[in-house]
Amino acid sequence: MSDQSSLPPTVTDEENIFERNLPRRAANHAVLTPLSFLRRSAAVYPDKIAVIHGEQHFSYADFYRRCRALASALTAAGVGPGETVSVLAPNVPPLLEAHYGVPMAGAVLNAINSRLDAATIGFILGHAQAKVLIVDSAWLDVVREVMEGNDFGARVVVYHDPGAEADGGTPAGNAKMPGSATDYEDFLASGDPDQPWQPPADEWLAISLNYTSGTTGNPKGVVYSHRGACLNALGNVMTFGLDARTVYLWTLPMFHCNGWTYTWAVTAVGGTHVCLRKVEREQVFAKIREHGVTHMCGAPIILNMLARGEGDDAPLEHTVEVATGGAAPPTTVIRALERLGFRVTHLYGLTETYGPATVCVWQPSWDDLDPEQRGIHMARQGVNHVTADEAIVADPETQVPVPRDGATMGEILLRGNTVMKGYLKNPAATDEALHGGWFRTGDLAVWHEDGYIEIKDRSKDIIISGGENISSLEVEEVLYAHPAVLEAAVVARPDDKWGETPCAFVALRAGAKASDEEIIDWCRERMARFKAPRAVVFGELPKTSTGKIQKHVLREEAKKLA
Amino acid sequence: MSDQSSLPPTVTDEENIFERNLPRRAANHAVLTPLSFLRRSAAVYPDKIAVIHGEQHFSYADFYRRCRALASALTAAGVGPGETVSVLAPNVPPLLEAHYGVPMAGAVLNAINSRLDAATIGFILGHAQAKVLIVDSAWLDVVREVMEGNDFGARVVVYHDPGAEADGGTPAGNAKMPGSATDYEDFLASGDPDQPWQPPADEWLAISLNYTSGTTGNPKGVVYSHRGACLNALGNVMTFGLDARTVYLWTLPMFHCNGWTYTWAVTAVGGTHVCLRKVEREQVFAKIREHGVTHMCGAPIILNMLARGEGDDAPLEHTVEVATGGAAPPTTVIRALERLGFRVTHLYGLTETYGPATVCVWQPSWDDLDPEQRGIHMARQGVNHVTADEAIVADPETQVPVPRDGATMGEILLRGNTVMKGYLKNPAATDEALHGGWFRTGDLAVWHEDGYIEIKDRSKDIIISGGENISSLEVEEVLYAHPAVLEAAVVARPDDKWGETPCAFVALRAGAKASDEEIIDWCRERMARFKAPRAVVFGELPKTSTGKIQKHVLREEAKKLA
Repeated sequence: MSDQSSLPPTVTDEENIFERNLPRRAANHAVLTPLSFLRRSAAVYPDKIAVIHGEQHFSYADFYRRCRALASALTAAGVGPGETVSVLAPNVPPLLEAHYGVPMAGAVLNAINSRLDAATIGFILGHAQAKVLIVDSAWLDVVREVMEGNDFGARVVVYHDPGAEADGGTPAGNAKMPGSATDYEDFLASGDPDQPWQPPADEWLAISLNYTSGTTGNPKGVVYSHRGACLNALGNVMTFGLDARTVYLWTLPMFHCNGWTYTWAVTAVGGTHVCLRKVEREQVFAKIREHGVTHMCGAPIILNMLARGEGDDAPLEHTVEVATGGAAPPTTVIRALERLGFRVTHLYGLTETYGPATVCVWQPSWDDLDPEQRGIHMARQGVNHVTADEAIVADPETQVPVPRDGATMGEILLRGNTVMKGYLKNPAATDEALHGGWFRTGDLAVWHEDGYIEIKDRSKDIIISGGENISSLEVEEVLYAHPAVLEAAVVARPDDKWGETPCAFVALRAGAKASDEEIIDWCRERMARFKAPRAVVFGELPKTSTGKIQKHVLREEAKKLA
Repeated sequence: MSDQSSLPPTVTDEENIFERNLPRRAANHAVLTPLSFLRRSAAVYPDKIAVIHGEQHFSYADFYRRCRALASALTAAGVGPGETVSVLAPNVPPLLEAHYGVPMAGAVLNAINSRLDAATIGFILGHAQAKVLIVDSAWLDVVREVMEGNDFGARVVVYHDPGAEADGGTPAGNAKMPGSATDYEDFLASGDPDQPWQPPADEWLAISLNYTSGTTGNPKGVVYSHRGACLNALGNVMTFGLDARTVYLWTLPMFHCNGWTYTWAVTAVGGTHVCLRKVEREQVFAKIREHGVTHMCGAPIILNMLARGEGDDAPLEHTVEVATGGAAPPTTVIRALERLGFRVTHLYGLTETYGPATVCVWQPSWDDLDPEQRGIHMARQGVNHVTADEAIVADPETQVPVPRDGATMGEILLRGNTVMKGYLKNPAATDEALHGGWFRTGDLAVWHEDGYIEIKDRSKDIIISGGENISSLEVEEVLYAHPAVLEAAVVARPDDKWGETPCAFVALRAGAKASDEEIIDWCRERMARFKAPRAVVFGELPKTSTGKIQKHVLREEAKKLA
């Protein structure tokens, strides 16, 4: 319930009724926030299953009570408005509950990529100034490593997953907690499940903070607003056709752009969330059949995984909608998935755009195309979501759109309510990204006559491996730190399983020696394993006349090695 | 494209990144407006049929061009921001186009109930200060009558419907235009169909003005904002399950709350609008079959009409979703419609809430109920839409909710973004309606244990006849003006065809005489025909000890006469 006393007084000037100074009132103005979705679904569907996790089933009434208890416990723990609560966990109920409980306490949710190394997690916890860290017990070793370097003063709450053993994780209760840590269920029990909560005073206030590996070494903290999260969730409902019959399987990490805001979208329609601790092919098919899953999302690697054992499985009894993003799904994968009973939607977006901002809308006229042509059409990034205001291909300096000829290159620019507020404590990067009235995606594309956008190249040196962004500059920094390395450049190498993997080109110092295993091990010791190069090529690096390394030449080299 | 220069400067205080003073920018803030839906659908579905009217088919590219031409012509005609453009027409393309063209010119759309009498239309045109009146040629006689009383200075644009003859209306071109009037197609041709348009500077600005007959005699002008219209349209998409395959038949007048905002919702999904000049049973079934209609709305009288000739028609080949509001559909009607192939959704709302604000959400557990019990459940007004923030039953003075016991009476209170900005030039009525943080609906209801609201009585003396609101006070005022009438009270009498009709109870002056025909004719000469009483009962009026007429006694009397 918003506080009417903070609203401006009522107008008396009769002539100004059409003008903006006819005041907003508590009666006719509510802040846009996805928290309202849970309040409504708990009222409309109290007994309906909201969350399934292994043997656990939470109704919408349960789910709402757990989230309010979390909010209450966080407030009691001293978490104040605008402060950060971090979560380090796979797709288990506490991470979903944090999407409501944390902002209900007025705080900001920071869901950390659980695949990151201790150094990066430590950087994030410090940069975000986390007051509370909720951690799955399987990640306690990493947290201990982080805390050895710097305590941060964050209170630690540990989740012991009762379903971890069945899913191949750490058995519940076996993991020892740090001295001052609290058990998650105890923490929840300390809160009041009936505590009333306040929506944010302003819909522009932050709801979450998601770190992205950009072109620089340190991750940047992307800040989302309640308004943007609410609208993107509604846009996803429309784009993906969710409704009260939706059963959503969590194959996409919730720490990726808050699960592309499906953490909120599924609740908006009163659908059912099916948690998934570990994404394994057998598990996915078993859950689809057991719970009648209707929708799921995932990076291309997930689609590859599903398609790979096509011959082993009988087709599904019902159609499952699966959305993917990051890279265009290959035609062979799409066809294999269709035979299994999936229908694929191709999305595109970035952490800075709350996940997907465009969708390759299927046109009825494509029904008659041959499979290859259909694949070519489906590979395009498409058009903006209904709630993403505009997507264009343009000259990034002048913002003048390129002709819709399918040939002229430009940069994809996005604008609207589903573009981030900015980067945390980084006004320079924020200004650069949001300059000129548009968000610069860094992706180079052409614009087709029918209005569909198609990516042709990345202007930023990002490698996307298994759905994770890897900054080539970050890897290069580690390589340059090796005593034998004179120069280094890292580019993406196409990979059947991972989509792309990092490939390093290294010029050694005069007289120095190093093997490729040595270089790879050096990297693995200093960064998350998935970021380390899979291949190292030694030799002089190709350069422009001004001495800039010609990465496009190296990309061609890397392709030949694939 | 919003003007970035008008936005606040960027923040430099690093610590305040989470606070609201991290500024909105052109890149990450777009005003919410349903106009963006047309821009997007014209980009995504340029060749798809957006509007069907008889033999006419307009693609989304055509539709967008016509709307921009209208905006351009209105601007050239001197219509400035915040000024009113009125439309007096049945559900024909110009009224739909006005939902985009008028606000694209920064103006406010006033769609006038085409069933009103000249005096009321004159009042509305004057009160709204209409600068342009777009009128269907079949209404020219009424407009001439209005203009005789007061010219208003509004420019008149006349639509000659090429399909009018086929639909039983005035043949195109046969109606003579007033001297200075312009033909609608000529007016459109004078505009630039490629003219760029600006979204409103603020989403709180007015998009439309809808007159409602409240409890007082003169209609009140309900003002909608761009924000509310956008959100209500998105809410309707979700509530009614619209998508790109939607074919929407216009059985609900577009002048009723802007067609409950379906004028915008159907465009949001790239669906097809099927216009309908006159709602006749045969026509409706013919259009459903011809165009594969998937969705339609209508007052209960429309449902009655469809159900009535059940035996005459073969069931439809596909399911048609039909939403109704205003009164609960009787079980017999629902069952007859289901046999014909319709699925009924029960909505509730008022002009002040952009049309429907609540929906009787179907619960899976109701599937097993017997028809009578299903009917009882479906008759309830239900729960708030996803985008309508909150709906409660409460004491209207204290706003304290009643217990959810299905027995305690309270008033339905609504709040959120889909409650009107206020009444035009009527701050006192606005304050009264929006007092205390809630919109008072005037409808008395109970709240069931499952959270569903059910109307038990109306505290306002409104009679709903054929989907139209009739103010009993307005009718009483006319009755009181009759020289023979001493006292008069008007209440609703249940009616199989119209739902309700006005029933007058009249006490004559001593020695005076008047027949019921005389009284009815007196009323018909002074107000819209549908508002005049259908029955007159003479005699002393029952009163409370303080002299207040006991309308509940009269309602019981009227029921017996039904």
